[in-house]
Amino acid sequence: MLKTHHCGSLSKADVGQTVILNGWVQRRRDLGGVLFIDLRDRSGIVQIVFNPDFSGEALEIADRARNEFVLAVKGDVVERDPETFNANLATGEIEVRVTEIEVLNTAKTPPFPIEDGVEVDESLRLKYRYLDLRRPEMQNTLLLRSKSAKIFRDFLDGKEFVEVETPILIKSSPEGARDYLVPSRVHPEEFFALPQSPQIYKQLLMVSGLEKYYQIARCFRDEDLRADRQPEFTQVDIETSFMNQDQLLGLMEQLMVRLFKETVNVDLPVPFQRISHADAMNKYGSDKPDLRFGLEIEEITDIVSTSDVKVFASIAAGGGVVKAINAKGCASWSRKELDDLQPFAARYGGKGLAWVTVKEGEWRGPIVKFFKPEEIEALTERLGVEEGDLLLFSADKKKVVADVLGNLRLKIGRDLGLINESEYKFAWVVDFPLLGWDEEAKRYVAEHHPFTRPKDEDLHLFESDPGAIRAQAYDLVLNGYEVGGGSMRIFKRDVQEKMFHALGFTMEEAHDKFGYLLDAFEYGTPPHGGIAFGFDRLVMLLAGRTNLRETIAFPKTASATELLSGAPSPVDLSQLEQLHIRTVPKPGVKPAAAPTEQQA
Amino acid sequence: MLKTHHCGSLSKADVGQTVILNGWVQRRRDLGGVLFIDLRDRSGIVQIVFNPDFSGEALEIADRARNEFVLAVKGDVVERDPETFNANLATGEIEVRVTEIEVLNTAKTPPFPIEDGVEVDESLRLKYRYLDLRRPEMQNTLLLRSKSAKIFRDFLDGKEFVEVETPILIKSSPEGARDYLVPSRVHPEEFFALPQSPQIYKQLLMVSGLEKYYQIARCFRDEDLRADRQPEFTQVDIETSFMNQDQLLGLMEQLMVRLFKETVNVDLPVPFQRISHADAMNKYGSDKPDLRFGLEIEEITDIVSTSDVKVFASIAAGGGVVKAINAKGCASWSRKELDDLQPFAARYGGKGLAWVTVKEGEWRGPIVKFFKPEEIEALTERLGVEEGDLLLFSADKKKVVADVLGNLRLKIGRDLGLINESEYKFAWVVDFPLLGWDEEAKRYVAEHHPFTRPKDEDLHLFESDPGAIRAQAYDLVLNGYEVGGGSMRIFKRDVQEKMFHALGFTMEEAHDKFGYLLDAFEYGTPPHGGIAFGFDRLVMLLAGRTNLRETIAFPKTASATELLSGAPSPVDLSQLEQLHIRTVPKPGVKPAAAPTEQQA
Repeated sequence: MLKTHHCGSLSKADVGQTVILNGWVQRRRDLGGVLFIDLRDRSGIVQIVFNPDFSGEALEIADRARNEFVLAVKGDVVERDPETFNANLATGEIEVRVTEIEVLNTAKTPPFPIEDGVEVDESLRLKYRYLDLRRPEMQNTLLLRSKSAKIFRDFLDGKEFVEVETPILIKSSPEGARDYLVPSRVHPEEFFALPQSPQIYKQLLMVSGLEKYYQIARCFRDEDLRADRQPEFTQVDIETSFMNQDQLLGLMEQLMVRLFKETVNVDLPVPFQRISHADAMNKYGSDKPDLRFGLEIEEITDIVSTSDVKVFASIAAGGGVVKAINAKGCASWSRKELDDLQPFAARYGGKGLAWVTVKEGEWRGPIVKFFKPEEIEALTERLGVEEGDLLLFSADKKKVVADVLGNLRLKIGRDLGLINESEYKFAWVVDFPLLGWDEEAKRYVAEHHPFTRPKDEDLHLFESDPGAIRAQAYDLVLNGYEVGGGSMRIFKRDVQEKMFHALGFTMEEAHDKFGYLLDAFEYGTPPHGGIAFGFDRLVMLLAGRTNLRETIAFPKTASATELLSGAPSPVDLSQLEQLHIRTVPKPGVKPAAAPTEQQA
Repeated sequence: MLKTHHCGSLSKADVGQTVILNGWVQRRRDLGGVLFIDLRDRSGIVQIVFNPDFSGEALEIADRARNEFVLAVKGDVVERDPETFNANLATGEIEVRVTEIEVLNTAKTPPFPIEDGVEVDESLRLKYRYLDLRRPEMQNTLLLRSKSAKIFRDFLDGKEFVEVETPILIKSSPEGARDYLVPSRVHPEEFFALPQSPQIYKQLLMVSGLEKYYQIARCFRDEDLRADRQPEFTQVDIETSFMNQDQLLGLMEQLMVRLFKETVNVDLPVPFQRISHADAMNKYGSDKPDLRFGLEIEEITDIVSTSDVKVFASIAAGGGVVKAINAKGCASWSRKELDDLQPFAARYGGKGLAWVTVKEGEWRGPIVKFFKPEEIEALTERLGVEEGDLLLFSADKKKVVADVLGNLRLKIGRDLGLINESEYKFAWVVDFPLLGWDEEAKRYVAEHHPFTRPKDEDLHLFESDPGAIRAQAYDLVLNGYEVGGGSMRIFKRDVQEKMFHALGFTMEEAHDKFGYLLDAFEYGTPPHGGIAFGFDRLVMLLAGRTNLRETIAFPKTASATELLSGAPSPVDLSQLEQLHIRTVPKPGVKPAAAPTEQQA
């Protein structure tokens, strides 16, 4: 008895048909000798009915069925009495009167109910992931993920992009995050690495003249994990030749428009806002600003640089900055609420937050008495101060102020309900700095990677002020998340030499590091650039989730364990011998796995 | 100057247009001050012309261009004089008169010409893979691969299959081929394995009620490599619930029909031939028979069991078999050709090949004198012997005879030109044995895997003759290659118990081996089964190639090395320390890599 119809697809249009359904028992009720079973498959749930009048011995068999038994039933679709319509069920106007049944399989009682919104410890859900994935919200997320991948592919195929699979067993690179390593059996004491991204291969494909490449690629980083990190993750990896940054970003906007239209039925306005990295840091204290609300950060260093608020003046004098947020209408916050802001600021490295409330036309707060009238006037204008406002000040090094006020802005935005949760607010953050100063190493390091192309108009700065060079690099930001990022790449040898020089090594040293890629660049490299989208994160946002693990069929925990299979695990000594390695016991106690399994 | 058109797409329809092209210099010729350059991009080649009359200083710049320089040119499409039409070029009726040029990049002279059919050592091609991939035949193969993946996906999406990504970092399993291992940093002395296939996860997804799953999945096997093996390979992995074998095979035939129609424009006849594993072994000596030609193997044990050809009679008496091939019209083979068959047979474990030629109505050959007249009569009928035939006999254990005559059949088929190289001959090999006897371990082992479902009508044989049980397992065979394989899976506990019992272990021992999968099966497992296609091999056959490496962008050699990057490679000691491992030098000399890099 193999299914002719899906449970969830039956409707009044099918009344009168004889159907065969296959599915799982969601629920059974015995009402005076008549048995009702909600039968579930991937498409949804339908009510099937066993009645002595028409079910015969099927009723007896069904009577032994329990939750999660797998049934095959044959029956007739009939319309329900209008008073028994179930508006909660897509199939709520009909039911199936069963004439035949086969129990395809029995089931033990599951450790948690198979239904949406269960309140179950996540580690139990992960251990029984195969049952967790039976829940409709998880199935829908997997379907959304599959559909999203299809939309990416259809769009890119339509734009002449070629999907190319690049290797998973690659050469370990000294750059970037920590590699996962794979010992070689054939070559003793040598190792493969798992790719952190297909970066080098996609650039090689541009040298190969493939012109337009994409891949939905698995990537690996052996880093300590956070809630939105996984040891293996998926990115939509894209590279193109003979396009400039504007063309690429425009094309990617079209891609996002299609993705969001066809998944969540939202019409995204294009072009997306473009905001320079400098502006993003200044106004929002973040390179991935949530632009669904204002509450912009204002610099006031100039106003308070000679202030009697000594901490402001001295920080300004020492090269730091003073910035403020005007939390409109928050003057009524309690003293406790204001006090709680101090540890909040400390979490982001701040030494404190000064505050001013504006009540009954008067500025109040510990520092108010130190302000000169002209400072109050200037601040009133700069910050648009009105009755009922709360002003919050941070003074420190630029980066600390950005972190403190950037996070404070998010907190206040959430607390005040300024965020429209149904909005999708995209922006490109552009003009990233090419180089960052590494205070420890006393040299510049590549902010993106050493092949990132500088802006043409900044090339002259290699000699005078490398730190001021802006890169042709861009991030795509959505609702405060970085969902994509990339850059145009250096393709001319003279620029590449300047870049390596700025990074403090010669072409020979660079060759030791990036040998075969630099060799490749000698043979006619086209202008090229690309982008990678964080696929897990995009699906998470499309699904309205806040946890990456909800979008991955078989995720790992924060301690990089798969609770279902118990991976990683010890292996046979003979396996290690063949790989020419042996393990080294960790001095002291092995960290207990259990406490870290709990997820953020 | 960013491209407005593709080089290879220009035609007479574009005459009069001004176009911008970006591409690589394929060839330049100077004909009396007029410069002709063949400009190449992914789409093809077009001739561009620099003439003092219309090119101005562009001519001077172009004069410095060499092969593989990257150019941007602007010019007008004009029709060529009919006498200069180039029929070898798709764009051969037009040329582009260049008015502006920009040299986007220069190039060193490549180590081999960028053109099809180059006779270059493969290791040089692999080292400069980025140049090798510029050759049109390689680009076309990558495009074919991308297109094939798209067809698989479009078909399966259309049939309600959901693409799910399963983990790459999984638990090591004691079954199957040798695992690649990945040491865990977080969990000292523990390891992940890379998946040999997503088998367990796809079955778990069926337990999850996903009903229809697919994935174009990377798989890994740390085995010694042959020409058609790679350490990492790609399979199209499919699993479905609530379908039987016939339904699944029928659906997969539709998939192949679409794939071959949309790639090589061939209409495959369906249904594909189905041949039992026993018949395949008997008639073709192979479980992946090339069915593009006949030359079937005939069993003659019954005819010669009492023959005076003593070796036939004694082997028949000892439980062996005697089989023959009738090589029609080969009686004229020389003595040397016949002698050469002896080492050929030996290569497949045979002790020799007896032969008979039929010339001038007479049987000739060393064994003819031992045949009784009635044997000759019976053989004549069984083998359809006619004037001019060559009969070849093998007598040995069943498996040896199959290997010898199976390979002899292929050799003769090729030698005699019996194979239509443009034909695609599919067949399903079905009814594989469920169990094979392991002579060493003195127990049965699973031929496919321990979850393969026996045929219902053979279930009773678990008690009486486990070796005779046929499995609901199938291979898809194309022109002598296995391109896919799979099975229906056991989903009932009682059958699974019988299976484990036949394999010689208790449910408890099985639990130690397959723990979490067996746990999962307790919670309402639907009937399910699936298949996996060897994607690299399918693309190889579609592209008309005989080497898997031609279908993979960045393949590894037979010694599992990537010649381009030099992976695998030594790594920093600090990396190993973090992973709680150290390497163990191999006693004796490290095997030299060079001699094994040469490819079969």
